[in-house]
This record gives sequence, structure tokens and C-alpha cells, in this order.
Amino acid sequence: MKVTSGGVTKAKGFKANGLACGIKRSGRPDLALIYSGVPAQAAGVFTKNSIIAAPLVVTKQHLKNNTAQAILTNSGNANCFTGHFGFVYAKRSAKLIAKLLKIKETDVLVASTGIIGKPLPYEKIKNKAADLVKGLSAKGASKAAQAILTTDLARKEITVEITLNGKKVYIGGCTKGSGMIQPNMATMLAYITTDAAITHTLLKQALKETTEQTFNCISVDGCMSTNDMVLILANGLAGNKPITSKGKEYQTFKKALHFVCLDLAKKIVKDGEGATKFIEITVAGAKSVDQAKKAGLAIANSNLFKTAAFGSNPNWGRIAGAVGSLGLKVTEWDLKIDFSSFSQKNIQIKVDLNLGKHKATVYTCDLSYGYVKINGDYS
Amino acid sequence: MKVTSGGVTKAKGFKANGLACGIKRSGRPDLALIYSGVPAQAAGVFTKNSIIAAPLVVTKQHLKNNTAQAILTNSGNANCFTGHFGFVYAKRSAKLIAKLLKIKETDVLVASTGIIGKPLPYEKIKNKAADLVKGLSAKGASKAAQAILTTDLARKEITVEITLNGKKVYIGGCTKGSGMIQPNMATMLAYITTDAAITHTLLKQALKETTEQTFNCISVDGCMSTNDMVLILANGLAGNKPITSKGKEYQTFKKALHFVCLDLAKKIVKDGEGATKFIEITVAGAKSVDQAKKAGLAIANSNLFKTAAFGSNPNWGRIAGAVGSLGLKVTEWDLKIDFSSFSQKNIQIKVDLNLGKHKATVYTCDLSYGYVKINGDYS
Repeated sequence: MKVTSGGVTKAKGFKANGLACGIKRSGRPDLALIYSGVPAQAAGVFTKNSIIAAPLVVTKQHLKNNTAQAILTNSGNANCFTGHFGFVYAKRSAKLIAKLLKIKETDVLVASTGIIGKPLPYEKIKNKAADLVKGLSAKGASKAAQAILTTDLARKEITVEITLNGKKVYIGGCTKGSGMIQPNMATMLAYITTDAAITHTLLKQALKETTEQTFNCISVDGCMSTNDMVLILANGLAGNKPITSKGKEYQTFKKALHFVCLDLAKKIVKDGEGATKFIEITVAGAKSVDQAKKAGLAIANSNLFKTAAFGSNPNWGRIAGAVGSLGLKVTEWDLKIDFSSFSQKNIQIKVDLNLGKHKATVYTCDLSYGYVKINGDYS
Repeated sequence: MKVTSGGVTKAKGFKANGLACGIKRSGRPDLALIYSGVPAQAAGVFTKNSIIAAPLVVTKQHLKNNTAQAILTNSGNANCFTGHFGFVYAKRSAKLIAKLLKIKETDVLVASTGIIGKPLPYEKIKNKAADLVKGLSAKGASKAAQAILTTDLARKEITVEITLNGKKVYIGGCTKGSGMIQPNMATMLAYITTDAAITHTLLKQALKETTEQTFNCISVDGCMSTNDMVLILANGLAGNKPITSKGKEYQTFKKALHFVCLDLAKKIVKDGEGATKFIEITVAGAKSVDQAKKAGLAIANSNLFKTAAFGSNPNWGRIAGAVGSLGLKVTEWDLKIDFSSFSQKNIQIKVDLNLGKHKATVYTCDLSYGYVKINGDYS
């Protein structure tokens, strides 16, 4: 596996574009399109929040046929809690793009991110849709990666090259995150494109398992969003012998996918709202991976721990308090806590519960004045 | 019921004192004693954190005989995660006070609050114990209320007068809170004294039920402490006919106890670390009181909601997102959200889940720069 560049348009047959359609008052790019020249196997993982945004409902419907060719995203407005018209506009957006691209409406996936509860200004999307399609380019990955951002400070892209049966295969991804980031999806959108040929069943399974170990292992503020999703399109144009079983080629693919997702997940944490530090928390000695992850996230979501990290204050009692709050059968005699200096930009925490043999690593950032400022002001 | 003054020494037979023994580097009072001239019925409610501090272990043991005469508290050090010597020092503290007061060692309850994981400087307590006992006074309530504080900005006391069978009965209380405040006890100590005559069984039940509806309905930062407890002493000196059943007198007593606990709980929230706003969240239309409380606390513990409150930014989508994160069967079509202006110092949130007929109210404060500063610096 080799890290390269090119993002979501590196894999054969993919184009992308991004532009400003006027949803964001700042005038920044807020409309993105990713497109595969041929129908691709498509799979998604979605937020577990019971309040889910209209575009997710539409995208879930459109994924039922297991294929897709386009992902349309607007930022600046979540199109969530927007009633009947929220759904109407999400549907219309997909229809509009399908018509312009001359593809099936059900092969257009839609996503929104931004403020909840404000009507989606559909007319603005409509007015720029033709330009968006016209500007699609095999070098447009960064434009799309830029246009999906909200309070993010930086674009987040990754590209890897692997070889499957002697054929070069690319996996590229982009993501947006920033706040409202917690397991089971964050205010997080992530798109992965690949020209690998793989069955839908294996693609879906690889994405689900990988998401559980990467995007679902990060937390910025413990808040679960209504709009999160990870989507993958695999159009098969690399010409590799299709992956149809869990053999060596599948493992190579999955390992690369894991690398891509973990890279994007970490980039989300590093660009967490107000983040000044990147924190890696490994919990070992758990009865299950799930227990280890829960303990890790209890620490990651403790405001007391996060502010201590911000203040370079190694108050490890707060780690003990967070673990204890889960009600596990752990006492101060069992619990082992190690940590690197809190003054560094990267902090490692190692916790041993001494209850079993499983472990998990989660990633988070500190809680700073910046987080309070961003989220006090944002609307 | 009448609100009066006098705190934990208003009820007949109670004395208290507080002084500085040098645990706090600031030189502020850090050692408190509350004392009943006669053995009192005693009950407690404790943190559900699995990492519990040494004094809680000792206090639980000492409550087994259902009586107590004294509560010794040090602030500035939690005596938690302090290994074998933590227990030894907690035991020794109780023994020392028992000897000075000439009472049973098991009738001394001990409590600590402050930083976790640092050895308790027992010698400092030992050196000042005689002075502490010597200074006990029927007017010492405020001194004790002061000495139990950590990052609290203000003393928190309340006193009420009720009449039971024609006899005047007093219930007084004091508390400390500030950060690490979340349901199932906070970094919170609360002491209630009364001269009511009541059986231990009813006293314990009244305290448990009342705590569930008051102290366990508040959250400052969603962090659960290792040291929390609520203790009540009822010495029976008011001379009322002992309450032995759940009749009218019990109801009067319990209502007054509820008033006292709710008052103290609200004072904790108002003095939450960095708090600039007091927020009351009522969730109705729930299938159970517990579900309503959970939904209320999900909102109360959402950093996105709390920072929006701080920023006077009525971003109600974050309320919807927090409720949805619980995975309840609620959709945007069911959920109703009302709120008062976010610019006010007091904010009311009303949420209707439309799932059932139960409701609950929880209390919280905003998340400000002040919280980050206090907890970044504290150690």
C-alpha cells in the first residue's frame, strides 16, 4: 500500500466539483458533487440518532438498489427538522442532479451538513446545479473536499494505491467533521471512492467493520449528530478480478480501506472545534472490545479530562473518575493509568482495566476556549 | 413550612465548626465538623461511581448501625485513589474525632472533596482536630458550610421550619458542588440536620426518594464524582411524636426535606464552575419519569447546547440532536420544543416527546470560558 494524492477523483472514472451557491453567508463553497462515470457498488453507514435529517432518509432509499453514481452535498444547512419540505427538497435535489447527469434518480445520494431546523434554501442549489455538473473534473477532488466543510479549518483528504491481482487500484477519501463528533457517527460526512471491483456484500461489510474501528472511535464533544454518514462508491474500473470472497485480495482492500478511514477520522479529531491537542486513548484489559471502547470514550467525553488536557494539567484522577462512572467492576486496586506529558501537542493515555484481554483505541481532542467560542457564536 | 436561617445548627442539639488546617494552599478553611449532642438516626446516599473514595467506604461502614453523631469533612483533597493509606487515614480521622468528642467511632462519618490521587495530609487534620472540636458552636453552621467548599464561589445553606404534632421542627442543610456534577451524585457533598423524631427506615426512604428528584436531577458537566454523598442526621430533640408511618406528618416532613434538597441542588447549579446561566429543562410526554429525566439530562449534558446557552444563541436543533441521541422512538414529527429567550440569565426549556404521560425537570448551567479556565488550571 502506498499513500499518494488525488483524493476522491484519483480512482478511475471519478470526477468532482465544488462551488459556492450562497447557502453560507460567508460566501464560501457550500455545494459539492462527486460523480462516477459508470454505476458503482455503493454502501453507507449512518447516524444512530433517532432524529435524522431528510437527506439521510432519501440516501437510504436510494441505496436500496446497491448502486450509485453521484453524491451531492450542501454545507451550511443540515436540512434536518425541516418537516415535509425537507424531504421534498432532498428528493428534488437528487432528481435535478440525475437529470443533468442523465443518470437514474436513485443513483444520486444526497447529504447536508450545517445548522439544524432552518429550511433548506433549495432555490440556491437549483440555480447552481448546472454549473456544478458542468465543472465536474477528474482533478476536482479538492474542490469537493472544500465545499463540504462547515467549521472545519482544513480540507481532509487521503489517497492510497494498492495492487489487486496485478492491477493498480486506488482508494480516495474526503471528510468533514469539526463539532458534534461522537461515536456512531459525528457531524461527519465521509466519502470514499475506489475503482476496485468488489461485490456489494463485501463492500458493505468492509465499510461497516472499518467504520466501527475508525470513525466510531473518535469523539470531539460527545454530541451525536443527525446528519452523519459515510458513503463508499466502488466502480470496478480498475479492472481487477472482482473480489467475491474474503481471500487475500479482500484483506488487502480492507486494510487499505481501514487506513483511509482511520486517517480521515484522525484528521477530524485534529481539526476538532477549538482543538489544540490530539489525544490517543488506549484501553486494555477489557472483557470485550466494546467495553474497552466504552471506557475509552468515557474518558474522551469527560469535560474535566478534556479541559485538563487543554490546561496541560495531568490530573489523572479525572481519568479514574470517568472510567468509574461506567459502573464497571473495577477498583483503584485494578485500574492502571499511564500517560505521556500533558504539555505536548499529542497526548497518549494508556489504561488497563485488568478485567480481561481485549483492547481498543479511541481518539479525541481537548476542550478549549475555542470550542466554547465557536459553539457559542455558531448559528 | 417557613424558610428561616441557621443552616445545619438550627435544629436543636446541633453544633458545627470550620477552620483552615492547611490542606488548601490558599489558606482557606478546609476542615469542617457537624455534631449532634445525642446520637441521631442517620442515612446516606452515595455516588454510583465504581472508583469510590476511602472516606465513603468508611462512612458506609459507620452507617450500618443506623446512627451517627458527627460528620467530619476535609476539602482540598478527595482522599480517593490513595491506596491503603487512604483508608487508614479515613479511619484514623474518625477515631480521632470520636475520642475528642467522647462518642463511638462508628458514629463519626467522614467525607473528603478535592483533587483525586494525592495522599491525604492526615497530620494537618490531626494537628487541628482539637481546635475544631473546641470551636463547635450552635452558631457554627456557616463556618462548616464554608469549609466544605472547593471551587464554589458561595456558601450554600438553607433552613426550614415545619410543625409536626404541634412541635416546631427544623431542617437545615448545607452543600458544596461546583464541577464534576452529574446525576447519581456530583462532586457534591450535602449535609442535612434535623431535630425531627423519625424512624430510621422512613428517614432513609425519604432521603433516597428526595435525592432522586433533586440532587440526581442536576448536571454541571456530566462528570460523575468518586466522592459524592448526601447525609442526613435526625436527632429527635424537637420532641415531636416520632414519625413511624407514612401519614400526614411524614408527608409534611418529606415535603420540607424535598424543598431543602431542591434548594441546595439549584444552588449547586447556579454556582456551577464558570456558570453564567441557570437552565431549567422540563421534559414531558415521556413513557416514564426515568425516560423524561434521561432526555432532560441528555440535553443538560450536551456541550453544544450548553455553549449555545452561554452564547445566547437559541440553536434549538442541538436540543433535538441531544434527545435523538438517546435512540428513543421519537421523530421530528413528534418532538415539540419550546424555550424562553437564551439571552436571559434564567432559561426555561420545555420538551414534549409525545410518547407518554410522564415528566421530569432537570437543572443545569451553561458551558463558558470560565469552566474551561477553572478546569484547565485546577490541580
